[in-house]
Amino acid sequence: MLSELKQQVLAANLSLPGYGLVTFTWGNVSAIDRQQGLVVIKPSGIAYEEMTLKDLVVVDLDGVVREGQRKPSSDTDTHLALYRAFPHIGGIVHTHSRNATIWAQAGQAIPALGTTHADYFYGDIPCTRPMSESEIAGDYERETGQVIIETFQRAGCDPQQVPGVLVYSHGPFAWGKTAADAVHNAVVLEEVAAMAMATRQLVPAISPMQPTLLDKHFLRKHGKNAYYGQ
Amino acid sequence: MLSELKQQVLAANLSLPGYGLVTFTWGNVSAIDRQQGLVVIKPSGIAYEEMTLKDLVVVDLDGVVREGQRKPSSDTDTHLALYRAFPHIGGIVHTHSRNATIWAQAGQAIPALGTTHADYFYGDIPCTRPMSESEIAGDYERETGQVIIETFQRAGCDPQQVPGVLVYSHGPFAWGKTAADAVHNAVVLEEVAAMAMATRQLVPAISPMQPTLLDKHFLRKHGKNAYYGQ
Amino acid sequence: MLSELKQQVLAANLSLPGYGLVTFTWGNVSAIDRQQGLVVIKPSGIAYEEMTLKDLVVVDLDGVVREGQRKPSSDTDTHLALYRAFPHIGGIVHTHSRNATIWAQAGQAIPALGTTHADYFYGDIPCTRPMSESEIAGDYERETGQVIIETFQRAGCDPQQVPGVLVYSHGPFAWGKTAADAVHNAVVLEEVAAMAMATRQLVPAISPMQPTLLDKHFLRKHGKNAYYGQ
Amino acid sequence: MLSELKQQVLAANLSLPGYGLVTFTWGNVSAIDRQQGLVVIKPSGIAYEEMTLKDLVVVDLDGVVREGQRKPSSDTDTHLALYRAFPHIGGIVHTHSRNATIWAQAGQAIPALGTTHADYFYGDIPCTRPMSESEIAGDYERETGQVIIETFQRAGCDPQQVPGVLVYSHGPFAWGKTAADAVHNAVVLEEVAAMAMATRQLVPAISPMQPTLLDKHFLRKHGKNAYYGQ
Repeated sequence: MLSELKQQVLAANLSLPGYGLVTFTWGNVSAIDRQQGLVVIKPSGIAYEEMTLKDLVVVDLDGVVREGQRKPSSDTDTHLALYRAFPHIGGIVHTHSRNATIWAQAGQAIPALGTTHADYFYGDIPCTRPMSESEIAGDYERETGQVIIETFQRAGCDPQQVPGVLVYSHGPFAWGKTAADAVHNAVVLEEVAAMAMATRQLVPAISPMQPTLLDKHFLRKHGKNAYYGQ
Repeated sequence: MLSELKQQVLAANLSLPGYGLVTFTWGNVSAIDRQQGLVVIKPSGIAYEEMTLKDLVVVDLDGVVREGQRKPSSDTDTHLALYRAFPHIGGIVHTHSRNATIWAQAGQAIPALGTTHADYFYGDIPCTRPMSESEIAGDYERETGQVIIETFQRAGCDPQQVPGVLVYSHGPFAWGKTAADAVHNAVVLEEVAAMAMATRQLVPAISPMQPTLLDKHFLRKHGKNAYYGQ
Repeated sequence: MLSELKQQVLAANLSLPGYGLVTFTWGNVSAIDRQQGLVVIKPSGIAYEEMTLKDLVVVDLDGVVREGQRKPSSDTDTHLALYRAFPHIGGIVHTHSRNATIWAQAGQAIPALGTTHADYFYGDIPCTRPMSESEIAGDYERETGQVIIETFQRAGCDPQQVPGVLVYSHGPFAWGKTAADAVHNAVVLEEVAAMAMATRQLVPAISPMQPTLLDKHFLRKHGKNAYYGQ
Repeated sequence: MLSELKQQVLAANLSLPGYGLVTFTWGNVSAIDRQQGLVVIKPSGIAYEEMTLKDLVVVDLDGVVREGQRKPSSDTDTHLALYRAFPHIGGIVHTHSRNATIWAQAGQAIPALGTTHADYFYGDIPCTRPMSESEIAGDYERETGQVIIETFQRAGCDPQQVPGVLVYSHGPFAWGKTAADAVHNAVVLEEVAAMAMATRQLVPAISPMQPTLLDKHFLRKHGKNAYYGQ
């Protein structure tokens, strides 16, 4: 069942340590088969070096386990909320990568300060609001997804144009067309987080980059007039 | 004698360079057999790449060498003080890992600023007070242990819920159920130290995270209602 | 055609990940055959680990593709502008290396603060002005080259003595006698960017180094009285 | 001639890249045979990966080449000045390692802020004064040595107790009983430079550590009452 998707999800999970995005098991990648409405996700708390295809878990969009003997990632309900709300995304990754997590702990959006950012994220990478006592005490992982969705709705922000977010006091989620694409965006998010932090140290009152330059770089890589790549 | 425990202690010591926690021989791991009251510890000043099972030293809780031809780590008396005072810990590690040492040099506790911290440490990671002239001039390594114990007692802090500490102007100690668990916690301490430092650079007056979120994350991994992992 | 130059350009491109200068495909190296007026350059958006000699593209100084089935780097027109304006350079590299990009995002020149800098760059490493709306909307990559050239002309700066530049809100370009020499200078630029940033954190009002010391170090490595090396 | 010393000097030079202390050829190690008054030193500008025993140069204390076909390191006269003035040192290393160089560029001594520092350096690691125009224009490398010697003499500082220095606007020199010992101290200098810098960011007005603790740590590793190691 879903054997190609599982291969992609396993490969994406196993790529995280090499990209320097995870310590121990602090990261999880999933991907969705939109036609069947099924999600393949990493098991909870299994070391990357021991993980095999058999450890992956298949769940439906309501969180019912359809295949697999492991417990799915404790963050599964966050992934599912995002798949339900963002119909064009195919893969999601959550990590505690250092620099993105620092911005999440600071509770601040990462401003677009240069073309490295603009090549992938069409504007600020937002940070969610603090969650309420009842959201934390209640269905916490699902509510984490809801507060991400609320953040994008309130900002009128398109998740295809801003493929990542910071969860307040927690860390980053990133997504993309596939599991590999989600991981790619998570690597970029981590890099632009590091660059933006140090840029602010050099120029504390730094302004976001020129909107024209942001447009130019995002649109030369994305959309119908893109001309980057083969 | 204690051959399985020795294997664990050797493996834990040898894992330190790979985790980026040590320069040269600046770290030591021990573990205790509670039934026999015996502690296995790293020898003093031996390079990790040359260390074998035969170099490990067995001492009792009074510091008497029971087996081994090497001198035990110069920090042995600190380890023993902690084993005597904290009855539920099974392994201890001391390093001069960069980011945790920076907080120790600053003489400041590491505040809980996000879920990475909350997943392992249930609140601030405390820093001891400066030691007195007589404590330093006297039985220094034993007194180092005493000042750690005093720090936990005064703060009403449970060493099982806060498995690490910073020694003022010195560096971190971490502990856990086993030698491997202690090293695991030392890796986390180093990572949260780095994150907290940079978070404070972004937001100098940053407040600790919401207590509800701290509870949620610590308790989903620890205690009777934990639901993380398999 | 140009088989030796292609070998040099391929090797220089493949050396970028090992020097820690690139994430994914974010970098490109070219070199010129001055006699034939032909430039060999990296293809656009091809992973380094998959790149072979056949992927390289040969263009003339007007940007006409003379050989190769790939699209050349999207930054090709910037490279060509520099080759046309700076007649003594033989290789060019563009990256988004972290520390140099931070200075570019800050919009600031990197001041000469020590002999590491002075050994390679004879004074400030300049940062271009922001590009105008029409420059960005127009022939963007060519205009990026023009604003670099303008920066050097206005400062009366010799590109052989300052073999690199920061493009405002974007990142660094470096150059040299060959493709390998350009990469060498890009590594130095990245290192001095990191050092200068932290020096400014220690001493916010730091002044540039003594001109006599700058002269001494640059001239002991460069020019007719050089005495460094074999 | 001096074949064992050459082996030591070659090994020490080749160890620099692995310790992360050098970029390209930016470092050099020498050692002295005190009985013969001869110094073995790295050649100028040769890549570490290509260096063999035959590339090493033997010079006497006046700088006359006694063996070898290469030009000795351009910093040779600085090494020789130190060997003449500091009779108990056996090896010297100069690098542009990042963190130590940052302090040199800042023109500031590295204060003793913790036991990592105190284990190896018995107090501040001094920074030389700026060199005069005539010192730079004159016999520059020899004068660099002289200004180091002056710094130690004025501070009443023993080079055996403080085995390293920062040269203003330049970078670190470290020394020790042997070439390997000098490199060991250079690694420590780089690490304490990084720690001190970040400690100052956390606590800008940080004071040096307690003198009693400095004494305790330096003296438990050095001198007749040392008890660290086997």
